[in-house]
Amino acid sequence: MDTFYESSMLIINEKELLQKVQTHNNVHEITVQVPGGLRKRALKIADFLENAGYTVFISADPCYGACDLKEQGDLLIHVGHTRMYSPHIPVIFAEVYDDYDFIPVLRNHYKTLPSPVGLLTTVQHQLQLPRVQSFLSEKGIHPLLGGGKRTQFKGQILGCDLTAAVTIQDDVEAFLYLGTGIFHPLGAAIATKKSVFRIYDTFEEVSPKKLLKQRHALIFKASQSRKMGIVISTKKGQYRKKRAIQIRDYLEEKGMKTYLFVADEIRPDILHGCDAYVICACPRIALDDAALFEKPVLTCTEVPLLFEDKAYEMDMIL
Amino acid sequence: MDTFYESSMLIINEKELLQKVQTHNNVHEITVQVPGGLRKRALKIADFLENAGYTVFISADPCYGACDLKEQGDLLIHVGHTRMYSPHIPVIFAEVYDDYDFIPVLRNHYKTLPSPVGLLTTVQHQLQLPRVQSFLSEKGIHPLLGGGKRTQFKGQILGCDLTAAVTIQDDVEAFLYLGTGIFHPLGAAIATKKSVFRIYDTFEEVSPKKLLKQRHALIFKASQSRKMGIVISTKKGQYRKKRAIQIRDYLEEKGMKTYLFVADEIRPDILHGCDAYVICACPRIALDDAALFEKPVLTCTEVPLLFEDKAYEMDMIL
Repeated sequence: MDTFYESSMLIINEKELLQKVQTHNNVHEITVQVPGGLRKRALKIADFLENAGYTVFISADPCYGACDLKEQGDLLIHVGHTRMYSPHIPVIFAEVYDDYDFIPVLRNHYKTLPSPVGLLTTVQHQLQLPRVQSFLSEKGIHPLLGGGKRTQFKGQILGCDLTAAVTIQDDVEAFLYLGTGIFHPLGAAIATKKSVFRIYDTFEEVSPKKLLKQRHALIFKASQSRKMGIVISTKKGQYRKKRAIQIRDYLEEKGMKTYLFVADEIRPDILHGCDAYVICACPRIALDDAALFEKPVLTCTEVPLLFEDKAYEMDMIL
Repeated sequence: MDTFYESSMLIINEKELLQKVQTHNNVHEITVQVPGGLRKRALKIADFLENAGYTVFISADPCYGACDLKEQGDLLIHVGHTRMYSPHIPVIFAEVYDDYDFIPVLRNHYKTLPSPVGLLTTVQHQLQLPRVQSFLSEKGIHPLLGGGKRTQFKGQILGCDLTAAVTIQDDVEAFLYLGTGIFHPLGAAIATKKSVFRIYDTFEEVSPKKLLKQRHALIFKASQSRKMGIVISTKKGQYRKKRAIQIRDYLEEKGMKTYLFVADEIRPDILHGCDAYVICACPRIALDDAALFEKPVLTCTEVPLLFEDKAYEMDMIL
């Protein structure tokens, strides 16, 4: 199955990108920002822009999404994500397309899918959506697409915005997630309480059971805390100060001692002095990286579960 | 000798700090920023400010100096360093004093010192300077203090500002550095080419030989590079874009392929794609942390040594 994966390519249209840059006047210094997996590409982009006469600064800070635009220079080229908020300098969102063809694997597995089925994906598989929609329709499975709050196209979900799934959860029998990784389809499964099938080089139903077990164990451990840290990120698209203050007041009322922390990148080595932490930033920090932190790290929506037996909810930034 | 060290205390005057805060009107949200070694203190400061009715955010980002003020909230309390540039929000620089008494050790060793001797130290030993000056004068050794560019009191040096030493180098026979650590006195020795004695719980002359050997080895390795990365930090007091562009032009003229990088915190894991890097930020990154980086990292003043046999110069931000 690996051949499918290896044969797919991440495509950035450099010519189109340069044309877009050239529509902006008075641009001399350009910042290029790419997510970790595309760091080699940043150097190539710098090359062709330098050749076109621009001075290019490659942003070396870690980049996880469009929630954290590096607004430096006359223009920012942000690669791999779609617009989330309005920046102060002109920004070109250079989309990256994975030309992976879902149809061969889907052909072997579509019979497992109920109808209607909600389609979900991330930006790099956007161009494949129409093909998958047509294929499913031909096979008598009705595909549905929902709109997100901070997303750009129908069917798109983010780690912090699963609205495109939630909004159609009552209209579909299950979801089909096109793409790699487990975080997004697991999030959709938890947020909608529907079956979510994930397709890339394999096809399977994702199960949130293990994650929920881990989270409840961590929430229990955190409930024994005396001192709770509440952590905000200054990254613009992750900044939730108001929510942090609400959580602080709630926890203080419940008798916990709290401290508010603020940081750019929330890494394990920067947290200190408390028994557990609530991460009022990207929900993936607490969910994906829990094992890296010495102390329990909770998402915002996990806080009430410290004291009440409520349904588990995904944390979203909307 | 350890008893001396253990018996000294880092003193922050909390009452005075609160009084200073209360002179500012319309302050509701306070950010507290401390260097790594004082992280526990941040929680204590938060406690007494919260008790006085303020909402306190503890900055959890790493903090290495006053070159990187977290200008968030209505007021910033920056602990342990002195003012370096003008911030956009009110900042209280809470100085931290080490009450360590240099006299007992100095009594055993002052005979080694020539006259006149230049005195150097960092902010936490500021209050001990007059005592040391009197002691030396009594013993017939004339103590001299120079002024720095970005420092606050006479005799103060920073990792990036050794002016207080350089400015009096022709008037003294040697320097006496009061304090712990080896970086500052080594820097002074390299910058002034004078003997530098360091005193704390021990008394010794520092020798820059080993450091210079390591640097020349690294510079040689970097001279074999084809692709050179030039890295700027966005930290306000470390931002040297102009210098970076000059170095870029110089290296390109010399036939090297260059890439400009920009980052907040320059850590080993964020650099990629080049054979060596010039760090146009805090000079300690290249000098203190060289072993942590996979590739050679140079300071700005080391760049000409890639091509010319010149005297070694310390990199300063002035």
